[in-house]
Amino acid sequence: MIRVDIISALPQLMDSFLNQSILQRAQDKGVAHIALHNLRDYSLDKHKRIDDESYGGSAGMVLSLEPFARCINSLKAKRDYQEVIFMTPDGKRFDQPTANALSLHQNLMILCGHYKGIDERIREHFVTLELSIGDFVVSGGEIPAALVTDAIVRLVPGVLHDETSALSDSFQDGLLAPPVYTRPADYEGMKVPDILLSGHEAKIEDWRMEQALQRTKARRPDLYKKYIQIE
Amino acid sequence: MIRVDIISALPQLMDSFLNQSILQRAQDKGVAHIALHNLRDYSLDKHKRIDDESYGGSAGMVLSLEPFARCINSLKAKRDYQEVIFMTPDGKRFDQPTANALSLHQNLMILCGHYKGIDERIREHFVTLELSIGDFVVSGGEIPAALVTDAIVRLVPGVLHDETSALSDSFQDGLLAPPVYTRPADYEGMKVPDILLSGHEAKIEDWRMEQALQRTKARRPDLYKKYIQIE
Repeated sequence: MIRVDIISALPQLMDSFLNQSILQRAQDKGVAHIALHNLRDYSLDKHKRIDDESYGGSAGMVLSLEPFARCINSLKAKRDYQEVIFMTPDGKRFDQPTANALSLHQNLMILCGHYKGIDERIREHFVTLELSIGDFVVSGGEIPAALVTDAIVRLVPGVLHDETSALSDSFQDGLLAPPVYTRPADYEGMKVPDILLSGHEAKIEDWRMEQALQRTKARRPDLYKKYIQIE
Repeated sequence: MIRVDIISALPQLMDSFLNQSILQRAQDKGVAHIALHNLRDYSLDKHKRIDDESYGGSAGMVLSLEPFARCINSLKAKRDYQEVIFMTPDGKRFDQPTANALSLHQNLMILCGHYKGIDERIREHFVTLELSIGDFVVSGGEIPAALVTDAIVRLVPGVLHDETSALSDSFQDGLLAPPVYTRPADYEGMKVPDILLSGHEAKIEDWRMEQALQRTKARRPDLYKKYIQIE
């Protein structure tokens, strides 16, 4: 059982992610609980403001310290959190080993920034892990938080139908996944490789390994180099 | 005006994301149009099946070629697409220069995979650009597609309130963004740096530049090295 608390200025943005697909299934099965918290509910301002101009006057609005502090403290009063995560493009790059490690925890908190940023003191005093999903900028931390939650929750035992499924994903064995095909074997002249239709299991396994190696070498020489050094 | 057509087996997963925040604003202003297409609508199967077992029998289901082919072809018959993008962890890493370049196009198509993968022939024969958002696996291409769409659409002129806002983002000048702060100046002993309260614009600009350089050097030596070589 994993619990993920997501704090956001726009939690409704994540509604459809949580109510569909594997995140819904994980919650129905009782192996995950994902709770959305609206930052606005923790504002003491009479207009429920949660942002303000930046000190020193740079472009854009900044999410205020106080609503985050109050929400985080109220959650921490109820249970222990192994990590308080902030989604930010200057954080540590999120990857499969990080997803694997996080999936073993019981309680995680994820803070979503919005507008131009969040008050730096939240990062200094409350956040324990800053995660990035790449060198690019999006409007807020909500979609990145949904992504990280999906990557973590699908690894929790009982979530995926086929227990072997997650283990044969790209990255779990250090190689990219080989190509896959399904029916029809011939679609307007586009054909499935003969070997896959042969029924010869051992040869098919060899072909898959060969394809995974070739693809990794061509697309990700960094991963390939690491892989052949370990083997 | 940019148009993004997203083809997915679970388009409802993206509903809340399209109807909130900047993507809604961009569509209201008429500067972007995002259309979701349900793969199931293009299945010829009487049960509207869109997936099947993998040839050669590896774990998990594979999205079939035919519904994708029919949907892509019907869209292409209506307009020209500059790119047909497939979200996949073994694609080219999505980054800010790619977002900038894609934001200049008129019509983009994004294909979302699901389950164990999609028939390789779709990638071979229809896809022009494969994008990854990192070395990790999620349940489907929907959240990654939402992420890419957000990163692209926010760059289209007229979407953001403050025209200078996107230009001062992390990565647009090759450096990470400096820290930002807002009121109160002192929250339970956590203080805003004095310099930001000084009102001395030139000194504040120097401080920000220094902070951006320090943060980039500490967190992303790769970007820092590139930056000082160019300057």
